[in-house]
Formats: sequence, structure tokens, C-alpha cells
Amino acid sequence: MTDRPRHAPLTAFRVEGQDLLIAGRPLTALAAEIGQTPFYAYDRAVIDARVALLRATLPARIALHYAIKANPLPALVAHMAGRVDGLDVASAGELAVALASGMSPRAISFAGPAKRQPELEAAVEAGVLLNVESFTEAERLAAISQRSGRAARVAVRVNPDFELKSSGMKMGGGPRPFGVDAEEVPRLLARIGELGLAFEGFHLFAGSQNLRATAIVEAQQASYALALRLAHSASAPVRSLNLGGGFGVPYFPGDTPLALGAIGENLAALAERAARELPEAQLVIELGRYLVAEAGVYVCRVIDRKVSRGQVFLTCDGGLHHHLAASGNFGQLIRKNYPVAIGNRMNEATEIASVVGPLCTPLDLLADRMELPVAHPGDLVVIFQSGAYGLSASPRAFLGHPDAIERLL
Amino acid sequence: MTDRPRHAPLTAFRVEGQDLLIAGRPLTALAAEIGQTPFYAYDRAVIDARVALLRATLPARIALHYAIKANPLPALVAHMAGRVDGLDVASAGELAVALASGMSPRAISFAGPAKRQPELEAAVEAGVLLNVESFTEAERLAAISQRSGRAARVAVRVNPDFELKSSGMKMGGGPRPFGVDAEEVPRLLARIGELGLAFEGFHLFAGSQNLRATAIVEAQQASYALALRLAHSASAPVRSLNLGGGFGVPYFPGDTPLALGAIGENLAALAERAARELPEAQLVIELGRYLVAEAGVYVCRVIDRKVSRGQVFLTCDGGLHHHLAASGNFGQLIRKNYPVAIGNRMNEATEIASVVGPLCTPLDLLADRMELPVAHPGDLVVIFQSGAYGLSASPRAFLGHPDAIERLL
Repeated sequence: MTDRPRHAPLTAFRVEGQDLLIAGRPLTALAAEIGQTPFYAYDRAVIDARVALLRATLPARIALHYAIKANPLPALVAHMAGRVDGLDVASAGELAVALASGMSPRAISFAGPAKRQPELEAAVEAGVLLNVESFTEAERLAAISQRSGRAARVAVRVNPDFELKSSGMKMGGGPRPFGVDAEEVPRLLARIGELGLAFEGFHLFAGSQNLRATAIVEAQQASYALALRLAHSASAPVRSLNLGGGFGVPYFPGDTPLALGAIGENLAALAERAARELPEAQLVIELGRYLVAEAGVYVCRVIDRKVSRGQVFLTCDGGLHHHLAASGNFGQLIRKNYPVAIGNRMNEATEIASVVGPLCTPLDLLADRMELPVAHPGDLVVIFQSGAYGLSASPRAFLGHPDAIERLL
Repeated sequence: MTDRPRHAPLTAFRVEGQDLLIAGRPLTALAAEIGQTPFYAYDRAVIDARVALLRATLPARIALHYAIKANPLPALVAHMAGRVDGLDVASAGELAVALASGMSPRAISFAGPAKRQPELEAAVEAGVLLNVESFTEAERLAAISQRSGRAARVAVRVNPDFELKSSGMKMGGGPRPFGVDAEEVPRLLARIGELGLAFEGFHLFAGSQNLRATAIVEAQQASYALALRLAHSASAPVRSLNLGGGFGVPYFPGDTPLALGAIGENLAALAERAARELPEAQLVIELGRYLVAEAGVYVCRVIDRKVSRGQVFLTCDGGLHHHLAASGNFGQLIRKNYPVAIGNRMNEATEIASVVGPLCTPLDLLADRMELPVAHPGDLVVIFQSGAYGLSASPRAFLGHPDAIERLL
């Protein structure tokens, strides 16, 4: 038992008596106030602490962007808009949220491997930076620019010739649908010059959800070197160099928090080089999950407690329809448990129990045989690390259950 | 190449010239008429043919139910209500759709491991059959019955002491959150008698998406034998015996269609036994996927054609946000390709290409290096076998793209 991997300690939320505190409020009171379960709650103080940590660790010359795909709740995006230097969007829908947040269009960028014509038009019209993903897209943008008389602001999204090691998801290296292969970029840069698009820089994104600082450092160095090389072929100086993100958070037993210090030191060195080698360039780090995942919890209520052939099941009103990732069905090869608690019995005696949702499928599993306080109908199950890729990444209509509420606290 | 597993032949849709025909309409014309991509189209003639096949193969004494979780589109459920003998629901939301379909409440049943209090109340009020999943639920139903003066109609959902072999998902055998362990059922039946609930029968569901007729036959025989044994402990005669479903459809290369004949013969033998041994019992087969999956297609449009390091990518306006199952992220251990076509180039020369969606994630993969006609922007990608667990089981809001339209044709 003692050798079994454990979840990393959760420090974002305190406990008072038997209650977990969310934004300083006991969970039982908060649930009563919200008036329904299930719900997601996001604690803005936890988000702010994460931003402050990044500001303290990363060099001042690095711009910090929020990738709103991680959590597009308008209130959360608006909160973030006052704290970060830019927003990154992946669709016209997200673009509308970003524009409504108050963030300057100059500080919004738009990436996506299959931008539709209305999306390209909306982005040019708004004056945001478009990460160009193909030769075809450059031609389409040129046509729009010509019709509208407004030159599209473009960066080239590069599919690097290396990949981010140890990533949850690899997004560069080898054949990819994202961006333009590094070796083709000089030809694209020439074409962008001919087309009269407003070239501003490069976007590189080698992978995501990485917990190894050395792998991130290596990818950032390789990304910088590649961008520097490609800059020689550009029709204008590089003004924006988005080095991507990839900063992971600990979800599963055995995961350890990312060592941010090494990344900060490396970025300081790169920023210093950039001041000489790409003097007009703003270095950008684009983070989604790392900014918000740990600030959010998903809370649902125990409906029934069953013992089947010696195994305890807590059946709940929440499940994979609200939180697909926690059920293990979103890009995980092997299902592992998120950190889970009984939020109104934080210090009580434990047992081994499984937490399942209301859906008639064995996939609807939120905790598989975890050590949890002994729970009963009415108790509140809390899933931590749920501020990113939660409700918006879940099949909310599946089996016709009520939707979850989201609250920024 | 010749030894590689192939998709089972698709016979539901014909081809005319280069166009796939859906409900007799060329896909190009249909897409123009619908006016947007992506969309789901369900062909009612294909559904009707499937119902007719089942009616011809299964004995007349078997009641055929539709589990609306497979596809809860109200128009489709209403269509089905006129063709099957009952509807099975898994939430109050689905119950409302079932009641609106015109199906008699007497022929509607409600299963679900975590039914909320308002759901239990709505079901008792409507007079549908409740599949009781625990002792707690029986007590709650008794309280509702007492308050309302209307005895809840109940069947006991049994967690069998065997499982359905070769199932896509196992839902019985061992410790399970579904139903009551077979060995506990006599005690629950006694309690149901004491509580004055209107006992009507049993519900057994050993697994789903099974392509081996022998495994289904074996599970039906074991389910029947178990129900017969449990019937001795019941306070009233068995009037409904739901033997579940589990009939699979071929999705992936190497899958072969289910041999229905053997299942029909077995059910005929069981129906004959039931006429003697459980003379008041209606045997029920509950099918979702098998009734509708093959009648549906998902259609999206090619936005861009890219070649990255020798590999062709068709990036499309549709993806996992509309069709999670086709991306391989819904309960599949190993990602495999659904059958896919270029619906406006059915007989043209082919190449090896991958089909990806608009999301910025490598998970958004609809076809991984398949042999497909050479496609270009504007062409229509068709994913077959998409009539079940499609849009309703997908994270529709993910990344803020437009929703898909659904059409029953």
C-alpha cells in the first residue's frame, strides 16, 4: 500500500471542520447557495495566485497569454483578460468571447487547422493575429484582405522538425495537420510577402500537458532556434514569437507538479538572446490548462450508496456527461483516477469506494476503488483539477440529464 | 494489403454517379438543401428495414423496445414509437421525449443507477415501469407511492452472476453499479411485496455492442434461467421480462454483421418455454444502437487539403465535437477507423489520406490513413454507422464551433 503512487498534495483549497473551502466558503453552504448539483466552481484567487507565480518566475519580457479553449466561460475569460497579456482563440465562437472580454484585438491570436471562410473574415475584420496553418489559408486571407482593404495580420504556425518529449499530446514533429512543415516555411514566407499580408511572426506548439521541465526547456530552445533560422526568410521583422505552452498539471497518482524554476531561467536566457537577435520580437508563452485547471472543482451529489459483491459504489447525479476527462475517456490510453474527495466529510474515516455517475454505461466512472471517507446519499463528491477541459469538453446532452452550472467565485 | 481487415460492406445506401444517395437524394443536393455542414442525416427507410428484419427474424411473441439513449432526436423517437412495442429511457429528459412521442406510458420503462428524486416522482406520476436498481430506490418509490396514492410499477434490474462474453461493454457479472446482485434479489422482492409496490418483472442487461450471436444466445438463456429462478421469490407473477439487447453493429475493419438467425431461433425456444413457465410474461428485447446506428451518416466538408511530410490531411469543418465515437475517444481501448467515404466522389481514384477536424488537438481524428478518393476543399466527408451515440454523445461546445444539424429523412 505504501509504495502505491499517490496524488500530488492539493494546496489550492483549505479545509474547515469537515468541509472543503472553495473561495473561502464551506462547500455545504456553497452548494446550498448555488441551489443545485452538479456544478463547477472556479476560484479566482487560485487563478490569481497562479498568474502571480508565473509573473514572479518568468522574465518580465515574456508575454503571458491565456488559451481560452481550456475554459471559455465568459466570466472567467473576462477575469483573465485583466491579468494576462493576450488571449488565444481557436474558433469564431471563442473569438467572440475574447473580443467581449475587453482584451485588445491586437493581443488576440487565432489558431486552428480548418478555419472556415466566415472565421477568416471575422478575424481579419476584428484585426486579430491569424496563425496561418497552410498555403491555402494564406491565399484565402489575401483575397479577404484585398476585398476589405485591411491587410490580415499573420503569423506562421510552424510544424517543427522535432517534438516535445513526454507530452500528454504531441502536436509537432513528423506529419501533422497543424501548421506548415518547417522545411516549407521559407516558401510560405515568400508567398506571404508577395500577397502583401502583414507578417508578424511565428507560432510553435510542440505539445501539451507536460510535467517534465527539461523537456519543455528543450522544446523552447529548439523552437527559438528554429524561429531564428526561419526569420531570415521573412518579409518583415519578427514581432511576435509564440513559443507555445505545454505546462502540465498533476492529475494522476504519481504525477508531480512542474518545476517552473528551470523553465523561468531558460526563458530569461532566451529573452536575452532575443533582445539581440530578434530585437522587435515579443516572446509569448501560451497557457490554458496551467492557468485554470487547479482553480476548478466539479461537485456532484451522492444519490445512492450500494454494495455489490463487496464493492462500494457511490452513484451520483454527476458523471461523464459533465466531466468526460475525469471518466478517463478523453485521450487517455489507460484510465486513472483524478483526485477526488467527499467535500463535506474531509477528515472522516475512510473506506475503498468507487464513484459512478447516473448514466447506464460502465464508462461513467469518476473514481475507481479509491480511498474515500465513508459517504452516504446527500454527500458531496468533489473532483479536483477540474478547471480546464471540463464542462466545455464533455457530452453535456448525453442521456438527457440536466446540465451543470458554472460559477466563478 | 489483401490480408488487412476490411470494413463490412455497407448496404444501406446506394450510389448514383459520384454521389452517395441518402434517402434517395444525391448527397451534393442534400447538403445544398440543408444549407450547412456538418450535419447528421438519418434515413427512416433504413430504420424501417431494420425493424422489418427483426420482426421477420424474432418470434412474434417478443416485444421489441427502442432504448432512446442511442438517439434521442424527438422526430426519430416519434418515428420509432409507431414501429416498436415500447421505449426505454434513462433520465427524466428522455422520459419527456418518450411521453411526447405518443408511446403509451404502459410501454415505457426507466432504468438508471442514480435516479434523482424528481425523476422517480415524474416516472411514478406518468405511470411508466421503473427498473429498480437498489434497496434504497425501492424505499423511495414506496414513499412516493404512499404520498401520491399511486403504486409505482416496478421491475427489478438484476446484476446477473454471469457476464455477456465478447461485449464492447460489460454491464453485468462481478461487482457493478447497475441493478441488484442476483443473490440479493429474493430479499428485495420480499421488501417490494411488503412495501406494496406493483411488481411486474425483471430487467437483465448483460452487455452491449456484441457481434457474436453465440454469446448473445448464451446470455439470453442464462438471463431467462435466472429470471425463472428469481420469479419464485416474487410477490406477483412476472408480467415483463426484459432480456436486454447487446446486438452489435460492425464499425471497424474486421467486424462482421451479427448473425441474427441464431438469436431468433433461441428467442423462439425461450418464448415457447415462457408460455408454459411464466405464462403472464411478455419477453422484451431492448435495442438502441442496432435499430438506428446503420441508418445514420455524419457529413462534414473539407476545408483544406494539406500534405505534411508526405502524408495527406483533409481538414474539415466537422470533428470530435460532433462525433466523439468516430474519433476513437468514447470507450475504445485502441482507436480504429469508422467506415468513411468522400460522398461526392464515390467511384474516383483513391489515395491514402487522413481526415481531421478543426480542433487544435491530435485527438480530433476522423480517419487515420485510409484509402479514400482524392478529395479537395468543398468535398463532403461521410462517416457511416453514425445513427447511434453520435451528436448526443459528443462534446458539442468544445472549442466553440457551430453545432451540427440533425435531419430525419
